[in-house]
Amino acid sequence: MTYCLGLRLTSGLVLASDSRTSASVDDISVYSKMHTFRTRPDRVVVLLSSGNLATSQAVRSQINRDLQNPQAERNLDTFEHLDEIAGYIGEINRQVQNSIAPEPDQASSFNPEASFLLGGQVGDGAHDIFLIYPQGNHIMASRQKPFLQIGETKYGKPILSRLADGELSLELGARLALVSMDAAMRSNLSVGPPIEVAICPDGAHQITHRLKLGEQDPYLQILAERWNDQLREAFLELPDPQGWQSG
Amino acid sequence: MTYCLGLRLTSGLVLASDSRTSASVDDISVYSKMHTFRTRPDRVVVLLSSGNLATSQAVRSQINRDLQNPQAERNLDTFEHLDEIAGYIGEINRQVQNSIAPEPDQASSFNPEASFLLGGQVGDGAHDIFLIYPQGNHIMASRQKPFLQIGETKYGKPILSRLADGELSLELGARLALVSMDAAMRSNLSVGPPIEVAICPDGAHQITHRLKLGEQDPYLQILAERWNDQLREAFLELPDPQGWQSG
Repeated sequence: MTYCLGLRLTSGLVLASDSRTSASVDDISVYSKMHTFRTRPDRVVVLLSSGNLATSQAVRSQINRDLQNPQAERNLDTFEHLDEIAGYIGEINRQVQNSIAPEPDQASSFNPEASFLLGGQVGDGAHDIFLIYPQGNHIMASRQKPFLQIGETKYGKPILSRLADGELSLELGARLALVSMDAAMRSNLSVGPPIEVAICPDGAHQITHRLKLGEQDPYLQILAERWNDQLREAFLELPDPQGWQSG
Repeated sequence: MTYCLGLRLTSGLVLASDSRTSASVDDISVYSKMHTFRTRPDRVVVLLSSGNLATSQAVRSQINRDLQNPQAERNLDTFEHLDEIAGYIGEINRQVQNSIAPEPDQASSFNPEASFLLGGQVGDGAHDIFLIYPQGNHIMASRQKPFLQIGETKYGKPILSRLADGELSLELGARLALVSMDAAMRSNLSVGPPIEVAICPDGAHQITHRLKLGEQDPYLQILAERWNDQLREAFLELPDPQGWQSG
């Protein structure tokens, strides 16, 4: 499995991903799930992936081939709007999956599906994040819920629902992404380090800050311990329910 | 959906359940998912249910019919060990599902499966909780993880993984169950009040304390607000990651 998330803050984007890939419990590997493409200086495009590894690699390869092909009708450099890029990646995603899907009459547990989080900014357009589904369509974050997630999303969602706020600073956004990642890692073995975090400030058209935290990274350990301690303290300070009835 | 959980603490059991049942988004009802059976005074048996409502009702009906039948070979009163009761309920669960499962060649999204949490104590045996699967088998909680969950379990799991500890008092156990329930309610519309909590102290062979918190209950609101505030404070006190690299 995988856990990736993106925060769309007023001051820019925060993107985070784990790096564990498991074909099965005895086939666990480390793959980065965060990819930046070399594009024109007026744009930044970052793609986080979840799901079938062959599919997500094939999608990235196709994006890169298009980008290197001066005859390509469309590639990351030709679009003027980020949501067109989301549509373009969604189309490639569908094509790749269709090319490897088993015949309908072949019963198979094989699942070629992949999902993507696209974060970026094109020219004077707003910075934004999109969730691209295996079906090729996409959604954007909302003002009320300025985050999107893919992969093993549920464990890390409650803390995002509580604290994600478009007015957070980029630093606090990165911290929040790591706290959400900590909840997912703690609850699901298939989510694991290295954890990558990238920050794209509004208007910078590039990732200005990157972080890669390995398994032994002291910050991940400090975060896990301190957050645990803080939660325990907060929990102990809560009031007790009233209105108990006997048996 | 549903969210039910049980904590096996040294001093006794804490059981909690939501009450929302949704056949679809326009067919949402309120059903209690926590049931206590009238058994011999040397035992207490509490059953929490998740999944197909018809199945879980049929399972409870069968348990009650057996209990009222003086000729029944086996019923809740005949077993000397709680895990035998778990096996008995699992068998009934399988039988009920088999009796209503669609024919294999009928493609159908109908799912007759139900899962149960069984909490209780029989005679001098230890109090315990079991998770009974749709397949009829069951597992118990462990010393390291003194809780079990059914239904929409992921949202409420991180806080349990962090704070559940066999040495918690029954009062703190109830508080923790409500905090976990709050995370699930907040993240998933299909989990909703009234929230029921029951406490069975070790050796009491009965539920000694019950709580039922409705939608407008001030405690649920205070809990949600205070917990949010406490988490925000705790979050702001966390250290920032080091080791950022440029672009």
